[in-house]
Amino acid sequence: MIKNSLLKAEVITIGDEILQGFVQDTNASYLGQRLTNLGVEVLYKTSVGDDSDLIEKAIGVAWRRANLVITTGGLGPTADDRTKKVVAKVFRRPLVLKNSVLHKIREHFKERAIKMPPLNISQALFPQGARILENPLGTAPGIFIQEDDKLFFSLPGVPVEMKSIFETNIEPILKQKQKGGVLIQKLLKTTGITESVIAERIQGILKEFESIISVAYLPEDTGVNFRLVIKGCLPEEGGKKLQEIEEKIRKEIGDYIYGSDEETLEEIIGYSLLMKKKTIAVAESCTGGLIGNRITNVSGSSVYFLGDVVAYSNELKKRLLQVSEKILDVHGAVSSETVRAMAKGVRKLCGSDLGLAVTGIAGPTGGTKEKPVGLVYIGLDSEEGTLWEERRFSGNRRMIKEKIAQAALDLVRRHLLK
Amino acid sequence: MIKNSLLKAEVITIGDEILQGFVQDTNASYLGQRLTNLGVEVLYKTSVGDDSDLIEKAIGVAWRRANLVITTGGLGPTADDRTKKVVAKVFRRPLVLKNSVLHKIREHFKERAIKMPPLNISQALFPQGARILENPLGTAPGIFIQEDDKLFFSLPGVPVEMKSIFETNIEPILKQKQKGGVLIQKLLKTTGITESVIAERIQGILKEFESIISVAYLPEDTGVNFRLVIKGCLPEEGGKKLQEIEEKIRKEIGDYIYGSDEETLEEIIGYSLLMKKKTIAVAESCTGGLIGNRITNVSGSSVYFLGDVVAYSNELKKRLLQVSEKILDVHGAVSSETVRAMAKGVRKLCGSDLGLAVTGIAGPTGGTKEKPVGLVYIGLDSEEGTLWEERRFSGNRRMIKEKIAQAALDLVRRHLLK
Repeated sequence: MIKNSLLKAEVITIGDEILQGFVQDTNASYLGQRLTNLGVEVLYKTSVGDDSDLIEKAIGVAWRRANLVITTGGLGPTADDRTKKVVAKVFRRPLVLKNSVLHKIREHFKERAIKMPPLNISQALFPQGARILENPLGTAPGIFIQEDDKLFFSLPGVPVEMKSIFETNIEPILKQKQKGGVLIQKLLKTTGITESVIAERIQGILKEFESIISVAYLPEDTGVNFRLVIKGCLPEEGGKKLQEIEEKIRKEIGDYIYGSDEETLEEIIGYSLLMKKKTIAVAESCTGGLIGNRITNVSGSSVYFLGDVVAYSNELKKRLLQVSEKILDVHGAVSSETVRAMAKGVRKLCGSDLGLAVTGIAGPTGGTKEKPVGLVYIGLDSEEGTLWEERRFSGNRRMIKEKIAQAALDLVRRHLLK
Repeated sequence: MIKNSLLKAEVITIGDEILQGFVQDTNASYLGQRLTNLGVEVLYKTSVGDDSDLIEKAIGVAWRRANLVITTGGLGPTADDRTKKVVAKVFRRPLVLKNSVLHKIREHFKERAIKMPPLNISQALFPQGARILENPLGTAPGIFIQEDDKLFFSLPGVPVEMKSIFETNIEPILKQKQKGGVLIQKLLKTTGITESVIAERIQGILKEFESIISVAYLPEDTGVNFRLVIKGCLPEEGGKKLQEIEEKIRKEIGDYIYGSDEETLEEIIGYSLLMKKKTIAVAESCTGGLIGNRITNVSGSSVYFLGDVVAYSNELKKRLLQVSEKILDVHGAVSSETVRAMAKGVRKLCGSDLGLAVTGIAGPTGGTKEKPVGLVYIGLDSEEGTLWEERRFSGNRRMIKEKIAQAALDLVRRHLLK
């Protein structure tokens, strides 16, 4: 726990669906993380439904026990969005119409060639004296009220809008208030290695530095991430210590670590391809387009990503990827022979430097004793020849697809490391 | 919101990792759902870290404002598990050793051939007069304290253990208290229509049935879902009422509603394609494989999904999809002419009944004044000819990709409705 923070926060998430558990409260976890990273002590998180009285009481309780209160949700135009009225009441400030906001809402609808529904006018009402925090991604701006040394923020519940306002408008304010007491930490991201193997390999290092470091493991379907947190150091000294510890850890874990913090595997690959001036094309089967989708989540990927053939049918594997009838007959669509032919075929078809291919059984049906659900072959063709791997994954259909895509992208990463 | 419930609940989840957002608070959403389905009005959910003072305050606040309080977490044997001591303090009951529990903990370790660590003795201590709720899956039992008509439960934080105790020991108690007032609800899913338009169209219906229905909106990037909840009815009567209201709502919203509850758009399309014995192939550009990925998330999609060509480069658009040089030169890759040619081309290439194509600018770079980021063309070719749409979407790269994929799948759904 952070204990020396000037800011003591409570996060309030508003909405029946969150309270009743029908949607995961990702806003609360996002804000918990961000505030913790800023060195803010988070005292409480509270969820409350779309009920004006209960929201009012929750904000009242929070305003007494914390000096930083952030609410999310209840700023939309429909009748179940009540936050703004409650905020006006709690802070005893009447709602006034902000013409600049009304203008922006009108523009928003005009751009989309939709007539503005009258309900949206209410989105231009704000508690008197509140600062308006612009929302570039939606029609509900955030609200900022400061009284003495206490800060109150109200944000929309749509996660991307909430995050955008938080990062653009709120973080700079909090950073200034915190005066540099930022937490020193780093998230290391791995794939292909288990949590217990990581723990074994780094236990000596953790022992050596146990007075200043703590580790939290965050296992995901596609790999294990772990967070290093430096405690009880001044920023500069802590930064150096973290670097020293990270270097030691990297020696133990090696290239299972593919990136850190916000980096994604597809970004890492994209960067390597750019640096090496190489292009890639993909041939997918069971993953259905997921690999191409991930590669193209990176802005600027059109420079190195030429295309993707999802050959779900054998017919397309033959016709587009030049997988021979004989290979398919003798070895089957899920085989090392097929994946190698697919990788070669798509590289030739697209004229790329690398050809990546996968073929497997995502399930839940389609498995046999010899070729069970989760079996997959991954191939990578380049001028140096054709690599391939056989892997087995467990889980439901979507998990298996995710794991296959991750393993395929990791094969590309490791190839580019050389 | 449930308003006529005898039980008014607050859920308190305890633990630094939950508070700081490094793990999702799945216990809170589980309990929120379970309680709601039992007809219990959930007033608040609160999260608090591993800090005795703050836990004590949180339980104190909850015990004043609710008559059913459930805590999870902090019952384990390690030093950061403080809940039991706090409970003893709040309820002014000394901790006493329960020999029956100690015996079971000893057995638990014996079965696993592990020596019981002395720390685990503390798990046999309980507030005087509390009822012990057996934990068949772990060493920390739950605690139940009743004072007057108010109920307090403390459960371990490990989700499987918490769920097991809740379902075995707590639900029967709550059901008896609630006397059969189970919740009746349905989630309707839409795309292509805004929250405020839905609200306007159904406001008359909601007015007519306001004594028994409530609505919660769940806007997502790809469409607006809304949940209908029937309150204050007996199960059978409530079910009939819900059906009646749903029919009226469907008349107002029409085929913007694509499904309900757990159904996804790709499942709906898959079902239609199966029923009509049609096949589909996809040509993607800016979405990079996302559409194929979604279609193939449905188990059994190999029956109707033949393949997907992600033609990121113009070269592939020409070579594989037979988009002519002239069209690309005169109209550009992002144009209605190109998308129509792509849809025709992929249908011919794969020999499918339907050919779906998209081409657009996902951004954040690559936009121009005439063709801004978010502009997309969607085409659908079939034996009846070629449909196409021009759409504009806002957001970041991933959001735009998601919105385009949703609009493209929805075009298929609407075509299949005919």
